[in-house]
Amino acid sequence: MIRMIAALVGAWLLVLFMGPKVIPFLRKLHFGQTIYDLGPQSHQKKQGTPVMGGLMIVCAVTLLSLLLHPGAYLGKWDMILALLAVSLLSMLVGFADDYIKAVKKRHEGLTPWQKIAGQIVIAVAFSAYCYLHPMVGSKIDIPFFHVQWDLGIFYIPLMSLVVLFMVNSANLQDGLDGLLSTVTSVSMTGWAAMALIMMQAANELHQAEAVTSYASAALFALAVCGAAMGFLRFNRYPAKIFLGDTGSMFIGGAVVGMAMLTRKPLYMLLMNATLVASSLSVIIQRIYFKVTHGKRIFKMSPIHHHFELSGYTETQIVSMYACFTGILTIASVLSTWLN
Amino acid sequence: MIRMIAALVGAWLLVLFMGPKVIPFLRKLHFGQTIYDLGPQSHQKKQGTPVMGGLMIVCAVTLLSLLLHPGAYLGKWDMILALLAVSLLSMLVGFADDYIKAVKKRHEGLTPWQKIAGQIVIAVAFSAYCYLHPMVGSKIDIPFFHVQWDLGIFYIPLMSLVVLFMVNSANLQDGLDGLLSTVTSVSMTGWAAMALIMMQAANELHQAEAVTSYASAALFALAVCGAAMGFLRFNRYPAKIFLGDTGSMFIGGAVVGMAMLTRKPLYMLLMNATLVASSLSVIIQRIYFKVTHGKRIFKMSPIHHHFELSGYTETQIVSMYACFTGILTIASVLSTWLN
Repeated sequence: MIRMIAALVGAWLLVLFMGPKVIPFLRKLHFGQTIYDLGPQSHQKKQGTPVMGGLMIVCAVTLLSLLLHPGAYLGKWDMILALLAVSLLSMLVGFADDYIKAVKKRHEGLTPWQKIAGQIVIAVAFSAYCYLHPMVGSKIDIPFFHVQWDLGIFYIPLMSLVVLFMVNSANLQDGLDGLLSTVTSVSMTGWAAMALIMMQAANELHQAEAVTSYASAALFALAVCGAAMGFLRFNRYPAKIFLGDTGSMFIGGAVVGMAMLTRKPLYMLLMNATLVASSLSVIIQRIYFKVTHGKRIFKMSPIHHHFELSGYTETQIVSMYACFTGILTIASVLSTWLN
Repeated sequence: MIRMIAALVGAWLLVLFMGPKVIPFLRKLHFGQTIYDLGPQSHQKKQGTPVMGGLMIVCAVTLLSLLLHPGAYLGKWDMILALLAVSLLSMLVGFADDYIKAVKKRHEGLTPWQKIAGQIVIAVAFSAYCYLHPMVGSKIDIPFFHVQWDLGIFYIPLMSLVVLFMVNSANLQDGLDGLLSTVTSVSMTGWAAMALIMMQAANELHQAEAVTSYASAALFALAVCGAAMGFLRFNRYPAKIFLGDTGSMFIGGAVVGMAMLTRKPLYMLLMNATLVASSLSVIIQRIYFKVTHGKRIFKMSPIHHHFELSGYTETQIVSMYACFTGILTIASVLSTWLN
């Protein structure tokens, strides 16, 4: 219990303390955001805000996860190592992208195919890992009905698509000050609760290894949650720093990692519905544009820009997303807890 | 489980639907806020925003608590009736205040002594009720140490002060757009979790009545949480409607009611630390002012106005309070859950 609280509070404080040192440093390195020409006009003033702030979250979470690792070493099935692997590797793709943007001052970063290739490798590897994991396997929980759905060998290709989808969704949602960090603080609390519920169930069945595993997953989720809240100190409107692809892809990896290790990718579609909406709105917009030869269904995609151009302020949209995520997260946790 | 989710989602949707009907109605009745002359200058533009929006929360919570009441009727020890009683009675004092302000256009409302007299009656009655309640009594939990402290007969006077303090704290915190509603959504989630943890403990001991009682308390907390998130739709910056004393005192009563019925008033000082800070800052400011014959320790009290005059925007302060409450709430729930 002390470890859990230490992960949450420690990550929060660590990011709070790092901020005032790291932000001027990144600014000096000219790691400023080159604002995407196609975003809303009002965003042009954000030009020059440092990116890669996500590195603070990455450092805090990695450090605390390893330091506070609960007891027994479980080798290759250790959930905390798996979670760190999938989120750090996703982060590396984003980091490469940010680095190229910042150094070469091109806003495109990596080419889309370079990104996708890297992500496919990570996605397939992590899905195969989960498939083979003795506490995970090919069955996933169906929300609200307390039955499981066995995907068999199709687990690997399907879940690979899910990983790809979620990591890029997190990247797409990261378009308003404080949006992704706020939504992450809310939903990660839910993922920590999910892991703790599975820990308690394992405890009743006296499965000592599963107890340690789920405890370590909860610890990771709490560290991400605390770090995201600390980061909000600097990232809330008006933002002094951005997550960058570095931070958003780390968060995407962390979310999809938690969901898959707790066998709850279908709950993820609920709890992280705003992430799904971010990606889907981009896809729908493109298809509609092609089919209608130039018409748009949203004023701009991802959908948070649509709300922005519809007259909502950035802070209103953040609060709206947070409430929506809160309702869905609490409902999902209740349905798992009180089954 | 379905009842819990229905309380949360139902209250949220009910307030969302009520808003567009109730706000123009209150505006037509000229129930606009007369902005306190002593607040920050920038708040003068809020003149005329309707108050008593809290009535939407009150209606949604009362209706859903009664409709979704889980099963067996427990008579006078029914926690949901006790929670409704303490929060509705506290609300009535606030309502009288709002009504006088709105109709007579005096910003003072009730005289301080009228308010306090009404609140003392409620506070003593509720404390005595808890003292006699077979599932509550005079023992309170000490946070993090899993021991209880028996206050004996001193429970009644001490807890009466706590009720008075918290109801007025909620009223004091309600000074920035969306502040109290946001903090309430976060901390009420924690109180629902506390009640559910006690429900599970009672379930293991096969205490059927306690299970029903705590379930009903959790249901109430979830309804308040959902209603507060729905209210945020209209109350977030720039606010179209205020909670008014009606809403803030209802929330104060709900918080202190949850804390006392789960025997956790000491956890409340943590989870609702921002409420405590709001009151304490006013008290410290007044004492310092008297002792130093006219000096001020904060630029303005309650402390959220101090932050405002220190250069933070309203939305920054709301997000700051929400993160702080989130960290403390998660830590408190973890310490109770994993004891």
